[in-house]
Amino acid sequence: MTTATSTRELAHPAREEIRLESVLHALSDPMRMRVVRSLAAGDGELSCSCFVLPVTKSTSTHHFRVLRESGVIQQAYRGTAKMNGLRRADLDALFPGLLDSVLDAARRQAERLGDDA
Amino acid sequence: MTTATSTRELAHPAREEIRLESVLHALSDPMRMRVVRSLAAGDGELSCSCFVLPVTKSTSTHHFRVLRESGVIQQAYRGTAKMNGLRRADLDALFPGLLDSVLDAARRQAERLGDDA
Repeated sequence: MTTATSTRELAHPAREEIRLESVLHALSDPMRMRVVRSLAAGDGELSCSCFVLPVTKSTSTHHFRVLRESGVIQQAYRGTAKMNGLRRADLDALFPGLLDSVLDAARRQAERLGDDA
Repeated sequence: MTTATSTRELAHPAREEIRLESVLHALSDPMRMRVVRSLAAGDGELSCSCFVLPVTKSTSTHHFRVLRESGVIQQAYRGTAKMNGLRRADLDALFPGLLDSVLDAARRQAERLGDDA
């Protein structure tokens, strides 16, 4: 029982532990960028099941973990759902303008390549 | 002789072939970021020998190749020197504001962590 409880605690870096190189690495994957764009477009948290990624469940879990461990998203269990939220306040405080310029770049590229269906 | 000549031609992506995910990946390594910051601080091209990176020669060559193949830098031989330049015009045209916000984020982090000696 103790084990079951402790596995439900998800590790997050504190704001001051977030590193630019890890954030850029997290954002350098198309699937992870898709998740971040969805979270940025919404106005709150989304459960993992909201994201339909063309990858296996374990790959999807891996992507969410990379995003969480880099400090790009926060994850928390709410009942049986794992909820995800963008750490915009932390990222904006550390790297003003970075997240918005990356999101803008992703939007421009998607429009240019016709990836936004 | 033909071979020697052809190995001196370095492959670069055209502007429209540059992809955001490759650029972010290229920038997600501290050594590569150091190179990009040096190029951004200067006003032209720098030879590879100008960069004193705490890595082996082959690792250094790898980093420059990743930067070139992602479209972040251009490389060209001038006599016996391999010269490097930031592809700012291409990056700014594709992703306005991205390079500057990444450079600003890197500067802030270096200041915060005391990495700028």
